[in-house]
Amino acid sequence: MALEKFLQAIQEESSKTVYGESPQELYEPIRYLMSLGGKKMRPLLTVMATSIFTDDWEKAIKPALGVEVFHNFTLMHDDIMDAAPLRRGKPTVHEKWNQNIAILSGDVMLVCAYELLTHVQEDIFKQVIRRFNRTAAEVCEGQQFDMNFASIMEVTEEDYINMIRLKTSVLLGFALELGGIIGKADEESVQLLYKIGVNAGIGFQLKDDILDVYGDPEKFGKQVGGDIIENKKTWLLIRALDIAKQQGMDGDLHYWLNLKEFDKNEKVEAVRNIYDSLGIREQAEAKMNVFFDTSLADLDKLNASFERKQSLVALIKQLIERES
Amino acid sequence: MALEKFLQAIQEESSKTVYGESPQELYEPIRYLMSLGGKKMRPLLTVMATSIFTDDWEKAIKPALGVEVFHNFTLMHDDIMDAAPLRRGKPTVHEKWNQNIAILSGDVMLVCAYELLTHVQEDIFKQVIRRFNRTAAEVCEGQQFDMNFASIMEVTEEDYINMIRLKTSVLLGFALELGGIIGKADEESVQLLYKIGVNAGIGFQLKDDILDVYGDPEKFGKQVGGDIIENKKTWLLIRALDIAKQQGMDGDLHYWLNLKEFDKNEKVEAVRNIYDSLGIREQAEAKMNVFFDTSLADLDKLNASFERKQSLVALIKQLIERES
Repeated sequence: MALEKFLQAIQEESSKTVYGESPQELYEPIRYLMSLGGKKMRPLLTVMATSIFTDDWEKAIKPALGVEVFHNFTLMHDDIMDAAPLRRGKPTVHEKWNQNIAILSGDVMLVCAYELLTHVQEDIFKQVIRRFNRTAAEVCEGQQFDMNFASIMEVTEEDYINMIRLKTSVLLGFALELGGIIGKADEESVQLLYKIGVNAGIGFQLKDDILDVYGDPEKFGKQVGGDIIENKKTWLLIRALDIAKQQGMDGDLHYWLNLKEFDKNEKVEAVRNIYDSLGIREQAEAKMNVFFDTSLADLDKLNASFERKQSLVALIKQLIERES
Repeated sequence: MALEKFLQAIQEESSKTVYGESPQELYEPIRYLMSLGGKKMRPLLTVMATSIFTDDWEKAIKPALGVEVFHNFTLMHDDIMDAAPLRRGKPTVHEKWNQNIAILSGDVMLVCAYELLTHVQEDIFKQVIRRFNRTAAEVCEGQQFDMNFASIMEVTEEDYINMIRLKTSVLLGFALELGGIIGKADEESVQLLYKIGVNAGIGFQLKDDILDVYGDPEKFGKQVGGDIIENKKTWLLIRALDIAKQQGMDGDLHYWLNLKEFDKNEKVEAVRNIYDSLGIREQAEAKMNVFFDTSLADLDKLNASFERKQSLVALIKQLIERES
């Protein structure tokens, strides 16, 4: 299957990439974080998009890896900001080394991402860097909005969707767009690819929010209910507060949100029961499907044969069906 | 004078540059830090180097500002790592806002530096970004070595010079090199410009170390003796330890280095007296002059008229003579 061929090529490139040598405190955390695995979804999107337009998809591998390195840079710094102890089940860089190393190693990782992006043809290089700059700035903007939301009471569904669009989705959009640019797709197709990625990304994040509450603990990989325990303002909580308030029934939800000391399992079950009584899961899935459906419909419109597009269709469908 | 004309152009460009709008927590710290002043030495170097080769030096202003934005990004993150309360006499970003904002605002600042660098001609863009990537990575390497040195007892003069070459000097080298590339200088001149900048940068940092001990408190702007109070392993301390040890006279110096509680003024005076007895100031100035002399000799060799080069000569001489 094409997807596995692409994944293997990306992993081979990743394992042979040298980010730097000395001092080792700076470069070892990069190798560590990059070796923790992950789905490699972003570089896959890039390579798949290139493969739609040319058989020479291998030229997309290094720049695709640049997108993955950028993504991992954001994880290294976000984990400091969120004081997260674990990433993919292993100690985060600031825990394993220290915070200063996580800041500085992250900085040089961003530089490494730019360096990998230099591996595109000369005639598209400035376009690629300009679009990447915009995307990278937006990802930072999304992270700042996410942090701001923790201390703002009134976050609307629209605010939330805009935040995840910036924090998560524009990079998926860029990953596909980059693949199109490298594959010399026409301007209209490049823009459509970006839109396909952004909508799939919003669906992807809504799926994440749903799994965090309703995932199978044996398959999910993270603690189910983590968002509920932390009062994280996900689409589910924002929607639940909104509907409960309209019905004059938001007392229960606020009781659990304001409780300072609680049994974690009890809180997760209680809030999940409130969600169930309000039909939040179905609404979240409906919302998610709107974005995935738009993404797949646009992919259908993309000016290329079905055969060329099928691995990308398959990847997006995997994102919809995933359980972890 | 040409220097003032260049400085004014850089400051005008800086004051009208919009880094981003929203969320304001992300972009306000950039405007704040950039408005705190500073010598604007790096962008001046770039513009001056371009002006050696073409009258159209204005095309260097935006990329030159990119170098200044990069420099300020490193200050924002270094100040977190060093837990510094003040920068140019004002609260640092992590003090005025908080640490997470200083991390993320710094990240987006690095992206802004890359965006400003896109304002060079298409045909030199990849060369510029590749050289900038290398330089940016080296600056991070230098900062990591600097942090490592705090907990290593044995730091040699050679280690120290290599550290400041990476942390400070390669960016001055790149600033001049960039100006040469923009001015369409030949390859040999571009490489010579880089070398001129690196040597001036090492001289500049040694001057900093000397001023920290021997500066006039009324002119220096910072607390004189700060490095001594913190046992910072500068060239002066490394050399003093080395010579005192050779003479079997390093007991006094180690006494002050190991003292946990002390009167700051007393320690500064005592260590300065030890330096004086070992002739450290003269040796440091001699070392500094080697680098500045090499820099000026190479500038003399640079294939351009004296008239074209004189503002750069004047700037380097200012760095030698400066008292703050």
